[in-house]
Amino acid sequence: MIITVTPNPALDVSYRVEHVHPGESHRVRSVHERAGGKGLNVSRVLHGQGVPTLVAAPVGGVLGDVIRDDLTAAGIEHALLPVSAPTRKTIAVIAEADADEATLFNEPGSKLGGEDWQRLRGLVADRLTAASVLVCSGSLPPGCAANSYAELVRDAHARSVPAVVDATGPALLAAAEAGADLVKPNAAELRETTGHDDPLSGAQQLRDRGAAAVIVSLGPDGLLAATDEGLWRAAPPFAVSGNPTGAGDAAVAAFAAGIMRRETWPERLRNAVAWSAAAAAAPVAGTLDHRVLRDIADNITIEPLAADGRAGE
Amino acid sequence: MIITVTPNPALDVSYRVEHVHPGESHRVRSVHERAGGKGLNVSRVLHGQGVPTLVAAPVGGVLGDVIRDDLTAAGIEHALLPVSAPTRKTIAVIAEADADEATLFNEPGSKLGGEDWQRLRGLVADRLTAASVLVCSGSLPPGCAANSYAELVRDAHARSVPAVVDATGPALLAAAEAGADLVKPNAAELRETTGHDDPLSGAQQLRDRGAAAVIVSLGPDGLLAATDEGLWRAAPPFAVSGNPTGAGDAAVAAFAAGIMRRETWPERLRNAVAWSAAAAAAPVAGTLDHRVLRDIADNITIEPLAADGRAGE
Repeated sequence: MIITVTPNPALDVSYRVEHVHPGESHRVRSVHERAGGKGLNVSRVLHGQGVPTLVAAPVGGVLGDVIRDDLTAAGIEHALLPVSAPTRKTIAVIAEADADEATLFNEPGSKLGGEDWQRLRGLVADRLTAASVLVCSGSLPPGCAANSYAELVRDAHARSVPAVVDATGPALLAAAEAGADLVKPNAAELRETTGHDDPLSGAQQLRDRGAAAVIVSLGPDGLLAATDEGLWRAAPPFAVSGNPTGAGDAAVAAFAAGIMRRETWPERLRNAVAWSAAAAAAPVAGTLDHRVLRDIADNITIEPLAADGRAGE
Repeated sequence: MIITVTPNPALDVSYRVEHVHPGESHRVRSVHERAGGKGLNVSRVLHGQGVPTLVAAPVGGVLGDVIRDDLTAAGIEHALLPVSAPTRKTIAVIAEADADEATLFNEPGSKLGGEDWQRLRGLVADRLTAASVLVCSGSLPPGCAANSYAELVRDAHARSVPAVVDATGPALLAAAEAGADLVKPNAAELRETTGHDDPLSGAQQLRDRGAAAVIVSLGPDGLLAATDEGLWRAAPPFAVSGNPTGAGDAAVAAFAAGIMRRETWPERLRNAVAWSAAAAAAPVAGTLDHRVLRDIADNITIEPLAADGRAGE
């Protein structure tokens, strides 16, 4: 079973409008709401692919209840920590007349106090004995220390459970230093976190700090993997534009499932690229477009790289 | 006591951001939420000015509970009808680096079925015996017939209670035909509803249909009044830009209070311009900026107009 931790979940609200014009009033054509946050999206993908998963997250206020109800309705197992601070929402405004261009407004989330964090940590620790992989995903809420994910990585390792971390900035650095088994920044996050323009150099820095494997998502161009067993570049046969949040979360889901199933790196990379492209093509994060999944699966390029990043070993 | 009816209330959410850029992701700096909808704003202004008022509205879902709690916390009397359809929200995104320019996203609201409408109508009717004025304000939710406000006007008149309607389109026309004591479109709404570019001609059309008085709000330029007792134009000493929704609702509140207190038209117009300017200057609808209120009150121009709209009688 794969536990995902989402310290800063959200009710993801999406609006369909004609255009987005700053300074004007917009009539919303349709409203769609679902429980979100990166870890929740990872669990949703895993659940959809038949992989047992558990969502761990703090929830509060009326939107916390909505998140609980939504997970229950979707049949996704969850261990939610009731907190007093209200759960946030995010708004995605989709402009139908502008090729479904998305304008996003992300609430920062309520402060999660140190005591609440320790309670969440305890709730996760209690379930780690039954877990195959731990996934920590998404932004830390205000008030959460930068080493929070690092603490969870150590808790997982104390129970011999591998840990995957999808974060950025100081939380990512701390998780690498705690020896996370896999970290997955995208190219921009890696640049901001490490200061390296070149993804391979940035990945190497995170490995030097202690991360066992670093996956860099390159958007529609695929993935770069730096691992103990070598370097790879994996690319889809055609670029799928669309939902980038969903794509990253689906890649994380594929790697977590691959670690649980003891797949080889090329197998993990193949699934990650396929799930990622299928998620980018789906309208909402956490779901896969099954036609894209089918069309793409046998046409993914997995290329070993030499230590200098050139093709061929 | 002034009853306000808000058939399509909303939780009004406002976000402060730096700029609004379509197609990009925005970090929200602060989140403010309050019970809204035009009738609720009218009651909030009345309550703030010490005028007894009661909010009548259908509410549903988790945001319905938030609205109830917010009204209770504000000490505003309410008679809310629980319905199964969830209450909507609106999002106002304020761009701090662009002179607080507001970009609005308005959810249409859930369908209010005929049976729920009749229950709301009954709830209002039960309270009309204790009322001095009825105010019907804002958009009708999907599923509500265009003559819904007209029905409430007739219910009020059957109990000798004057009725004020702030609506647009077919709902405004039907309310005028039912003999509403005062209707208050803004210039654009009046043009769309009557087809007349000239506000005086548009106002005359609504009076010909049956409205006793028509007030046209002209934004920062003030108000135009067409009544049985004559025509007036009322203007503030200086233009106050800002929150236009709040300004219109504050004007309606002033007229409702003026009718209750049997003020003359010039008195009502003076208060309406003052409250309106003070509301435009306030950050959220339903509140007045007391400094603007004090600075403006003695410097409002009330000018009688001849039947052709020229100054002087």
